[in-house]
Amino acid sequence: MATIKDIANKLGIAVSTVSKGLNGASDISDDMRQLVLDTAVEMGYASKKMKTTGTRKVCILIENMDYENIDQFGYEIIVGFKLSAARRHWDVTVVPSNLNMQTAEKYDTYMLKNGYSGAFLLGFTLHDDWVKQLNKTTVPTVLLDNYIERNNHVGYVGTDSYEGIDLAVDHLKSMGHTRIAFLNGSKNSMVSEQRYQAFVTSMNKHGLVPHEELIEYGYYVPDCAKYHVPTFLQNGATAIICASDLIASGVIIEVLKHGLRVPEDISVIGFDDLPIASQLSPSLTTIRQDRIDLGKSAFLLLDGLIHNVTISKLLLRAKFIQRDSTSFCKNRE
Amino acid sequence: MATIKDIANKLGIAVSTVSKGLNGASDISDDMRQLVLDTAVEMGYASKKMKTTGTRKVCILIENMDYENIDQFGYEIIVGFKLSAARRHWDVTVVPSNLNMQTAEKYDTYMLKNGYSGAFLLGFTLHDDWVKQLNKTTVPTVLLDNYIERNNHVGYVGTDSYEGIDLAVDHLKSMGHTRIAFLNGSKNSMVSEQRYQAFVTSMNKHGLVPHEELIEYGYYVPDCAKYHVPTFLQNGATAIICASDLIASGVIIEVLKHGLRVPEDISVIGFDDLPIASQLSPSLTTIRQDRIDLGKSAFLLLDGLIHNVTISKLLLRAKFIQRDSTSFCKNRE
Repeated sequence: MATIKDIANKLGIAVSTVSKGLNGASDISDDMRQLVLDTAVEMGYASKKMKTTGTRKVCILIENMDYENIDQFGYEIIVGFKLSAARRHWDVTVVPSNLNMQTAEKYDTYMLKNGYSGAFLLGFTLHDDWVKQLNKTTVPTVLLDNYIERNNHVGYVGTDSYEGIDLAVDHLKSMGHTRIAFLNGSKNSMVSEQRYQAFVTSMNKHGLVPHEELIEYGYYVPDCAKYHVPTFLQNGATAIICASDLIASGVIIEVLKHGLRVPEDISVIGFDDLPIASQLSPSLTTIRQDRIDLGKSAFLLLDGLIHNVTISKLLLRAKFIQRDSTSFCKNRE
Repeated sequence: MATIKDIANKLGIAVSTVSKGLNGASDISDDMRQLVLDTAVEMGYASKKMKTTGTRKVCILIENMDYENIDQFGYEIIVGFKLSAARRHWDVTVVPSNLNMQTAEKYDTYMLKNGYSGAFLLGFTLHDDWVKQLNKTTVPTVLLDNYIERNNHVGYVGTDSYEGIDLAVDHLKSMGHTRIAFLNGSKNSMVSEQRYQAFVTSMNKHGLVPHEELIEYGYYVPDCAKYHVPTFLQNGATAIICASDLIASGVIIEVLKHGLRVPEDISVIGFDDLPIASQLSPSLTTIRQDRIDLGKSAFLLLDGLIHNVTISKLLLRAKFIQRDSTSFCKNRE
């Protein structure tokens, strides 16, 4: 572990200058401060501030995800995380992230500069600069729904998609459905790939055929339904499993537009169990992700990583919530 | 949630008798006590004792696994579990299990009677009576290396086999090996199946062929090597990945018996990194399972389940430990 002296030696400057750089003193230039911070990160320096139990500060970095009000996906995740953190006397700062921040400095530098012992990243994609840097980070970091190989400082928290999808297929099969369609989330995402595999595996396990013309990738907005529902209906689908409640809400609208009814003609199942699920008409049968628990578990995982317990994956159970958007299969001719 | 009164009503006896049965008082018959306990379990009764934070008792049930001294697989797992539990002020009792105990009473009854709020099960197999009862238990339970579908009260903790095997294949490929054999643990175990899949996936990912004649299931003892190493050698293997360090120690002996040297002729890789791994001759390159962390994580998971956070799976990173039992491939003709 590098010390302040090591950094001073490497840069050929005084220890006091390094110390000023690390502590954000104003009487050195911005360039010098940046150089000190970058060198500290490169050499694996961890400040006493980060290591002392006195401060105990972590952050939630969030982007591409709504979290401001209780109807939105991120809201309860943040609540759950804060609840767990408070029990262990950690301070949590929520930081909306953006591309500028990520271009301005490296992830590790940002964390060191702000004195965070770890971070929970929500809504990031594999294309984000900071996520690309995670294969080498030494900052304890938890990702929702994304996995980084071979770095002991990074963990992945999520809901067990396999069991969730399997419960949905189980339910539909018990109601006589055989031509089940799957409208997935966006391509090139780890979770979409998992759910695709889960759908195919579960259909096979149930003795049903996962027809390729009944499986499509969409996007996590209701609007994506209009591109895929017509094809599903043409190909004889009697039930549609969706990768989110928002997608399902779009699917219901699209089915109605085609003069068909939900659930009498077409059964629809969502994913997430957002507050809107029970308010839709008909109320939505869905696969619940417990977002409070996701937040709590993310903190448990982060706390583990901070204490050098190298947890790689932590998955929660999905729960099947039956409401009014599914019913017995009526064979459409 | 059933109350003492509900149990009394169902059995048509006095509340005070139910209370005596639940609290182990000696002035009622054994048969009556058993009836009260069985009915309580059936009705989903959870005693105040179990729910009160005052008592906080959990147990580790262990069978088919050595844990008495530091060289054995279970030892550090138990240490890690106790460390985490102590930090949260929980008492831990280690209970060696056996078939008699499992025949004598149901798992839930045993737990209720002894006032345990949860259990960590080590070394059990899917054939054990108590494991078969886990699909319906309401007692928070954590299994090492086994998974129970669709029960929110049961979680699985283990090491990420996929990443472990992948690191081993990576290492061997970088040393020029292409004909890599895999001597797995016993068949009909979830972990063996995972590792088989991991081996095939990783070989394919590395552009290598996973030859069926170079893949065998063995057993977790050194002796199993003699049944499979001859076939591997006949079929031109230059490296053997083993599912445990004990198996690897048997493989090294068997290779020497055939007049070949480790690592000059055959590279050998273990799994676990038990203390013997570094004491073997040559010292064993292996895939490390951090057993202290496994124990700590098992407690974290159990603590989650006790607080209704429905964690389903918690996996730890495997670490690759390079020692002297692997070297560059020498093409054997």
